[in-house]
Amino acid sequence: RLALPVFASDALSSVAYAPDEVLLTLAIAGGSAVMISPWIGVAVAVVLITVVSSYRQTVRAYPSGGGDYEVATTNLGGNAGLVVASALLVDYVLTVAVSVSAGVLYAASAIPALRDHEASVAVGVIVVLSLINLRGLRESGRVLAVPVYFFMGAVGLTAIVALARLALGTLPAVESAAFDVVAEPGYEHGLVGAVGAFLIARAFASGAAALTGVEAVSNGVPAFKKPKSKNAATTLALLGGIAVTMIVTILFLANKTGVRYVDDVSQLRLNGAPVPADYVQHPVLSQLAEAAFAGVPVMFYIVSAATGVILFLAANTAFNGFPILSSILARDGYLPRQLHTRGDRLVLSNGIIILAAFAAVLVLSFDASVTRLIQLYIVGVFVSFTLSQLGMVRHWSKALATEVDQVERRRMMRSRVVNSIGLSLTSAVLVIVLVTKFTHGAWIAIVLMACMFVLMKAISHHYSVVAEQVRYVPTDESSRSLPSRVHAVVLVARIHKPTMRAIAYARATRPSELEAVTVAVDPAESAQMLREWEELGIPAPLRVLDSPYREITRPVMQYVRSIRRRSPRDLVVVFIPEYVVAHWWEQVLHNQSALRLKTRLLFVPGVVVASVPWQMAAAPGVPTKISGPVTTHGDRQRNARA
Amino acid sequence: RLALPVFASDALSSVAYAPDEVLLTLAIAGGSAVMISPWIGVAVAVVLITVVSSYRQTVRAYPSGGGDYEVATTNLGGNAGLVVASALLVDYVLTVAVSVSAGVLYAASAIPALRDHEASVAVGVIVVLSLINLRGLRESGRVLAVPVYFFMGAVGLTAIVALARLALGTLPAVESAAFDVVAEPGYEHGLVGAVGAFLIARAFASGAAALTGVEAVSNGVPAFKKPKSKNAATTLALLGGIAVTMIVTILFLANKTGVRYVDDVSQLRLNGAPVPADYVQHPVLSQLAEAAFAGVPVMFYIVSAATGVILFLAANTAFNGFPILSSILARDGYLPRQLHTRGDRLVLSNGIIILAAFAAVLVLSFDASVTRLIQLYIVGVFVSFTLSQLGMVRHWSKALATEVDQVERRRMMRSRVVNSIGLSLTSAVLVIVLVTKFTHGAWIAIVLMACMFVLMKAISHHYSVVAEQVRYVPTDESSRSLPSRVHAVVLVARIHKPTMRAIAYARATRPSELEAVTVAVDPAESAQMLREWEELGIPAPLRVLDSPYREITRPVMQYVRSIRRRSPRDLVVVFIPEYVVAHWWEQVLHNQSALRLKTRLLFVPGVVVASVPWQMAAAPGVPTKISGPVTTHGDRQRNARA
Ligand SMILES: [K+]
Ligand SMILES: [K+]
Ligand SMILES: [K+]
Ligand SMILES: [K+]
Ligand SMILES: [K+]
Ligand SMILES: [K+]
Repeated sequence: RLALPVFASDALSSVAYAPDEVLLTLAIAGGSAVMISPWIGVAVAVVLITVVSSYRQTVRAYPSGGGDYEVATTNLGGNAGLVVASALLVDYVLTVAVSVSAGVLYAASAIPALRDHEASVAVGVIVVLSLINLRGLRESGRVLAVPVYFFMGAVGLTAIVALARLALGTLPAVESAAFDVVAEPGYEHGLVGAVGAFLIARAFASGAAALTGVEAVSNGVPAFKKPKSKNAATTLALLGGIAVTMIVTILFLANKTGVRYVDDVSQLRLNGAPVPADYVQHPVLSQLAEAAFAGVPVMFYIVSAATGVILFLAANTAFNGFPILSSILARDGYLPRQLHTRGDRLVLSNGIIILAAFAAVLVLSFDASVTRLIQLYIVGVFVSFTLSQLGMVRHWSKALATEVDQVERRRMMRSRVVNSIGLSLTSAVLVIVLVTKFTHGAWIAIVLMACMFVLMKAISHHYSVVAEQVRYVPTDESSRSLPSRVHAVVLVARIHKPTMRAIAYARATRPSELEAVTVAVDPAESAQMLREWEELGIPAPLRVLDSPYREITRPVMQYVRSIRRRSPRDLVVVFIPEYVVAHWWEQVLHNQSALRLKTRLLFVPGVVVASVPWQMAAAPGVPTKISGPVTTHGDRQRNARA
Repeated sequence: RLALPVFASDALSSVAYAPDEVLLTLAIAGGSAVMISPWIGVAVAVVLITVVSSYRQTVRAYPSGGGDYEVATTNLGGNAGLVVASALLVDYVLTVAVSVSAGVLYAASAIPALRDHEASVAVGVIVVLSLINLRGLRESGRVLAVPVYFFMGAVGLTAIVALARLALGTLPAVESAAFDVVAEPGYEHGLVGAVGAFLIARAFASGAAALTGVEAVSNGVPAFKKPKSKNAATTLALLGGIAVTMIVTILFLANKTGVRYVDDVSQLRLNGAPVPADYVQHPVLSQLAEAAFAGVPVMFYIVSAATGVILFLAANTAFNGFPILSSILARDGYLPRQLHTRGDRLVLSNGIIILAAFAAVLVLSFDASVTRLIQLYIVGVFVSFTLSQLGMVRHWSKALATEVDQVERRRMMRSRVVNSIGLSLTSAVLVIVLVTKFTHGAWIAIVLMACMFVLMKAISHHYSVVAEQVRYVPTDESSRSLPSRVHAVVLVARIHKPTMRAIAYARATRPSELEAVTVAVDPAESAQMLREWEELGIPAPLRVLDSPYREITRPVMQYVRSIRRRSPRDLVVVFIPEYVVAHWWEQVLHNQSALRLKTRLLFVPGVVVASVPWQMAAAPGVPTKISGPVTTHGDRQRNARA
């Protein structure tokens, strides 16, 4: 029951922009072309019903969840799965970009001060959403339910009042009905011939944006309460029904009230003259609210606010879904493995920041234009739909090959038919989307998907190369061979307690050979150190390495390599005294040369780097926090020699 | 000889904005008030000559260089030195912000397309300057000489032509001379009473911006050729003479040609009516070039270009000076010590980026307005001047207390008189600047200086606390006491070659006790590992640690602590097998949990963390770069267990 609100925002928010895109695409061929918009609504509704029915099969067959990526991987192989994964990752980014841009469009329609600053405001909203998610404030289904039901109530009330007044003959025309729409060059004859058919296909492809969000439900099955598949199937049916009703009703009412909605207001004419420069084109839903509640202007603001909020919530769901998918891909070796560590704040943060950054780049590149962003949006969703349906058809065929129970077989065959219809319809829509939108921006989404695919392939390749290299074969003794002697080297910067402790610890390991080594950056200083060293009678000889260029790392590296050359079978253990301070900002104050040296020494075979920490007391008055559970605070602390 | 061009850009570029600020400040009291501007020029010239004479004493007394910070520290103590250092750091930031904003002002005056985008263009220039400096492209004095002499030539030619035409009576009035300047409310009676005197003081304080850049010479003595002090003194005298001539001439000519320059063009009237909205107010120097070369419009562009370039070069000098001062402050323990490492690209880069970021924030905050930024600029310079002069007076008094040679004593007394005059004049100007500009923005510079002062104090305190804690006292045996036994723990994630090598190395150190430890994230997996471990006959017992919450770090930490509790006198050496890959982007793909664990283990006393590296071969076709001199490339590589 509570799963509905969680997924509803993404799925239902599409009605805030899909009808508008249908209308403005048709308007390219002039005012009369727009009349066919309800029929495009019906076509979209048919696809939506088919896709929802297909997905109800999917969630039943894969009750553990996993969504399109799992279905494609299991039934069509890793590459198909990776294509779906690439499509879905791009889809999440576009869900944020499109939803936020649309939300800002509604906000700017109601609040004139926001106009002309849409892109900046949208980036601001994205930043706020990331901060909310970085802070880990997850809304429970209960909290989310309020705006979702409020939006459904607002749209429902608008529709009912409008339909009632239509029946009574008291529904006024919208303000924009007064305009004439001039066809763009090349479309002067309306929807005729190949050009007209192509434009109808394009309008339908834009209307298919109404289906975005359905994939979010099917990929989010793990988030449902048990019984997961049953709940997911019910949610899908409910959301599908509501979405279909909304989209068809909105396009029907837009037609009846004479809504004019165009991409470029220069297409509009008022009694033959262009519209004034300050004319503001409200979104279709807002225009309907204005007409339905004519005389009660506050309802326009209520509907706009409800729609804006639901759109921002839709963007927010991507912030939940993106890290989940990343984690699954990391588990399978397609993304950096640490992304799989669940519950790790740092890992989650990276996902949130990456998603927000890509979405912000898109919003800025396309100036927060919903119409331009939507060209990129639908491709990924339908790639995912199509491959998933193909996978399901394969799934049922495989299952039928072994199933003997006749009742079960009939159920499976019915399911296969549903998924086959889904496959043919989604692949047909995918082709229409590709053909009609490729040059309008869909190619960008395809390039992004291809980049993700190649990147994930490369990561997967790297992991398998590494796994091969480190595989242990018991007959190969090279990695087990015991070094004959241990040569301990203690690095000394100054004579102080950390150095003394490092020498004591090095002595405790009873090496075959033990020496202290220092770099002579300042000859006078190191001569003084050598004198002091002997006076103190420190139980290890001190070797001074020359450094004509005042470097630290290079002389040490050269010396360690010379030991290795002299006695290649020896193990060299380099002991490095390190300051450990309580706060990361204190750590910044300590020389990073130890960290650099350690990193470089790791590249010399046969050398072990041993850090001997000296724990500093915290400065008085500053609380120390070094123990307790894994915290990112402690993790950020780096260690270094003073 | 070549030192002149290096420092000239900062010192001379001030004439591109200082006269403008004098004129627009006086214009607040209306057109007639502006008539006194040449006298303010003379006052500024007197201060400039005095300051230059004073600094010629300083560079002679401190031939090693070191500048105001050294003079104040040596003679007035560390806190005074730190105040000067804070002032100079803020001064460098403002040099960039003011010079770039002024340069963009000239550019926008000549190139209409840049207008209304000044702030963005200025930030772009700052970014370009940082990139040039990050790339390490240092211009030699020889290259810098070209634009500097070009600028001096352009201004000189303008002045000579204008003066000649003035003498011949053929110098035309500037375009803006046609305007009347309306006094702002409260100043209707002109420069009368306390209000008038205060405005004159404010105009003088603005004109003192002409002195900025002199401090750059005195702080840059180390950069001079030998004999340094003689060359620096000569350069100071030359620059002072040129600057004085320029500023007085410009203000004189501006007066004669009737230049009107105001902060807000709504102050201007043309025959009683406001000026048209598209009127562009050119900078004073450009207006003079227009008048002097009336009929040769190209000269306006040449003078504008020369001035813009010299201003950007002035900003560039701050990118050289800021890291030098930071390095000196780091040497003295006031800034993170690694900033002292000369020639380290990474360190230099941090300085450049910090300087650019602060300057960009200022430019954006003040919308690249030179008039608003200049309110912040002069305070720091005069704090530095005043304390430096006070230090010099103290210096001569101390020297006189021991000097017996009468010739020398007379010379010293003369020098003390010069510095005393410098002190009284610079402190008087500092008071005037503080009083007249405090509420106009100087308070921001003072707050920034105070923040820097407190920060550097805190850093210095931290270093002294640490030095005290680690001081080695031979009678205190605690840091030399030898642990009785060594308990070796090898961390195991999987059975692979890196693990085997870590066990072999751990055995080679012949510990009193040796065990392998793994964390049971997945019980089935670890049971399987335990079986395999025994089958392979690996010569170390494997201990499996439970992890109910699938954590890695916490169980290991708890286990290591339990060993320490059981036998507190034992040394625990934790061996961690680590993958070492050839490229940092490959490292991203390996789990960072080893790094985290190492960091956490460093906080447990009596535990040594030993990294046993497994050097991965590079992927075929990708060149490996892991040896050679210290590179930031190699340094970025982090090490982690797979
Ligand atoms: K939808
Ligand atoms: K979506
Ligand atoms: K959606
Ligand atoms: K100057
Ligand atoms: K300066
Ligand atoms: K300057």
